[in-house]
Amino acid sequence: MSSPATQPDFGSARPGGRTARTRAAVRDATLAELAAHGYRGLTVDGVAERSGVHRTTVYRRWGGVDGLVVDALDLAGEDGWQPPDTGGFAGDCRALAAEVHRSFADPAQGAASAAVVAASFQSPRAAEALRGFYADRNARSEVIVSRAVDRGELPAGTDAAAVVRAVVAPLFHRLFITREPLDAGVAEQAAEAAVAAALAGVFQLPSGA
Amino acid sequence: MSSPATQPDFGSARPGGRTARTRAAVRDATLAELAAHGYRGLTVDGVAERSGVHRTTVYRRWGGVDGLVVDALDLAGEDGWQPPDTGGFAGDCRALAAEVHRSFADPAQGAASAAVVAASFQSPRAAEALRGFYADRNARSEVIVSRAVDRGELPAGTDAAAVVRAVVAPLFHRLFITREPLDAGVAEQAAEAAVAAALAGVFQLPSGA
Repeated sequence: MSSPATQPDFGSARPGGRTARTRAAVRDATLAELAAHGYRGLTVDGVAERSGVHRTTVYRRWGGVDGLVVDALDLAGEDGWQPPDTGGFAGDCRALAAEVHRSFADPAQGAASAAVVAASFQSPRAAEALRGFYADRNARSEVIVSRAVDRGELPAGTDAAAVVRAVVAPLFHRLFITREPLDAGVAEQAAEAAVAAALAGVFQLPSGA
Repeated sequence: MSSPATQPDFGSARPGGRTARTRAAVRDATLAELAAHGYRGLTVDGVAERSGVHRTTVYRRWGGVDGLVVDALDLAGEDGWQPPDTGGFAGDCRALAAEVHRSFADPAQGAASAAVVAASFQSPRAAEALRGFYADRNARSEVIVSRAVDRGELPAGTDAAAVVRAVVAPLFHRLFITREPLDAGVAEQAAEAAVAAALAGVFQLPSGA
């Protein structure tokens, strides 16, 4: 199973070693608590109890609630995720949108991801960590565009970051702003719209280079 | 000054009469408190003090904090807002995106709107009211597409709701998810991408009618 594109895959980074296992256990507990009780209900005691890691250890290493959320996002960003590589630009964009849709549709992962987005509205540190996570995810996704330029599918000077944002923005808009249902067809349409706009030259950088 | 497109213009609906003035005063106070302290810091006492309306009146008529947020959104939805009408499809889409950008860039209105979005993550009733507000706003905006179809600029069977969502989604994605800066150029690019996709037939309804 591949990791999700532009949201945290909280389950994939499992480095070995005792410290790393503790970190993963605390991360899992943080996300489970966040999904169950929201940011407002997230406590060091709750995470300590759920993870089996002593609360003094949690306080010492993570500082508190904000540190727990930030580290969960940092850990999610340490995975080896790469965007889909289907051999073609339109296929890559469709696969990217489909990954985002599937990961939010997954009950456990979707709840954890939504809880982190919600936390970002209540904690400036969570917001900054989430901003960094998405910036990294989007930067990794830009290879979809550079490959398309190399293949001659897109004009040189296409703003790769703009294309990637265009693919995923409609999905997040439905999930978190208008709260409309998301399905595979919506994801596919978002990808196709971004592809059509890119082919029409909408995302050309001003310099053209 | 026109009202904003797809977010609440909390200042424009000012019906006459004592009851209406009280409602507007409480709405103003609710948004100011929300912008200053967030949903978590919103209290009936704070709204009563700021509005000059007695707290027992606020409790009786609005019930509590959730009722205050819901009524502020209901009141915002009672205005006479209509989408831009520039005489052309691309111009209408650009003007719509520019309105959203300007209204979020306005310090007072932007803060209130952002606070309502934040509240929707903490209160199911606020989320439902916001969902209803956007559904109504987007429905009113669909005339942009029907006019374009009538003019022969777009093929019949274009999904108007999908076009409108495509115009504004990238703006909300930046503001509330990736927390990247928003400027007039980003708004224009979002509009142009939606226009290119619509012209390419991406938003055609399956029936084609």
